[in-house]
Amino acid sequence: MERIDEIGFGGYRLIQNPDYFCYGVDAVLLASSAGEKLKEGMRVCDLGTGNGIIPLIFESKCKVKISALELQDDVADLAQRNFKLNGLEDMIELVRGNVTDYTAPEAFDLIVSNPPYFQEGANIISDGDIKRVARHEICGTLEDFMACAARNLKDNGRFYMIHRPARIIDIAQLGRKYKLEPKALRMISPSAGEVPNLMIVEFVKNGGRELKILEPKYVYENKKENIYSDYINEIYLRR
Amino acid sequence: MERIDEIGFGGYRLIQNPDYFCYGVDAVLLASSAGEKLKEGMRVCDLGTGNGIIPLIFESKCKVKISALELQDDVADLAQRNFKLNGLEDMIELVRGNVTDYTAPEAFDLIVSNPPYFQEGANIISDGDIKRVARHEICGTLEDFMACAARNLKDNGRFYMIHRPARIIDIAQLGRKYKLEPKALRMISPSAGEVPNLMIVEFVKNGGRELKILEPKYVYENKKENIYSDYINEIYLRR
Repeated sequence: MERIDEIGFGGYRLIQNPDYFCYGVDAVLLASSAGEKLKEGMRVCDLGTGNGIIPLIFESKCKVKISALELQDDVADLAQRNFKLNGLEDMIELVRGNVTDYTAPEAFDLIVSNPPYFQEGANIISDGDIKRVARHEICGTLEDFMACAARNLKDNGRFYMIHRPARIIDIAQLGRKYKLEPKALRMISPSAGEVPNLMIVEFVKNGGRELKILEPKYVYENKKENIYSDYINEIYLRR
Repeated sequence: MERIDEIGFGGYRLIQNPDYFCYGVDAVLLASSAGEKLKEGMRVCDLGTGNGIIPLIFESKCKVKISALELQDDVADLAQRNFKLNGLEDMIELVRGNVTDYTAPEAFDLIVSNPPYFQEGANIISDGDIKRVARHEICGTLEDFMACAARNLKDNGRFYMIHRPARIIDIAQLGRKYKLEPKALRMISPSAGEVPNLMIVEFVKNGGRELKILEPKYVYENKKENIYSDYINEIYLRR
């Protein structure tokens, strides 16, 4: 069953279908980090856009041309309706396709991705496994996402990805393989002092080898009472 | 000018020469992490032992046979005197040599290293540059240390290294190259919430790909007043 939410960025609204998935704090954190580097007129791409939340947050910050890639038909339809609902169909182009073979006609200045987090063997999936495809590496692996970003970025273009910190070794190795050099890394924990469960990596295509570790952040000041940290509150205040 | 300090582990004493360097919290953190995996009779190696602090801490925890590799003659002499001073010359063998070509007659169960942190070009060094050799990658690079560990470890043996978090990408890439798989990673900050400036990586030779991110830790509860964190206090209490 679909619903329409106010996302609080740019006054935009978002149709979501909880049967597929609803966007999480991950997408907001990623869009907020990458969004700091947006400049008007940039060519931007979101690999695996889902319901289109990241392009909407980007447009609330800066008028950029965005290509939003989505593999799953029903999800792509939803994203397309979201872009129309907010009058952004001229700014955001919905592209149906997969990271495994997507090659844009022109390289991008900035690419962003919130890819599936969970590894999976070669499982056969049934129709309607929309949630699983979005969350598990079934139709595209971490390597497919990173190779796609590298293939479609301009020299010195930036790629932002959010992922689980436990994948840092794979990400580092693949980054070197595809000439995506990690330049900044931020670990994010559920609350202060906890083991981080998210990390945002900023890569520069063909960048020099110099990684900056950013201040660790956390989502909740008090998780039980659902009180967000200053970090999260600032992201929402800045909007 | 040399001095003798009580290290507080095993009642051992340590001759140090501040003109070379004094051991830091790094060595204690590393020895404490790796020390949890020691079992009596294990064959252990410390690559770049300096004044020998790590072998001494190890012996305070568990009677193991240790090979302590040191390149610099004056530093090796100091380490040798430290092992004698504490009556440990039967347990700890001082080996003069460099990680670039060191191959032990028999592979080790556990290897530990607190290598030089700072990268450096091909600089010519003058005699007496003892501090610089210990701190900069002049006589041995990160790759030399990791290759040496891989070469001298048994299958499934463990390697523990402390380093700067900014080197995580290089470390991940070299780990894959030399079949040292990172299994656990702990970031350590000067104080709570700060950018981490140290990390301890636990590798398993030919281990499976599964990294565990450990709870982040910090050294000072109050840096200005020199009050250590519970984490550091516990390390000293456990001794």
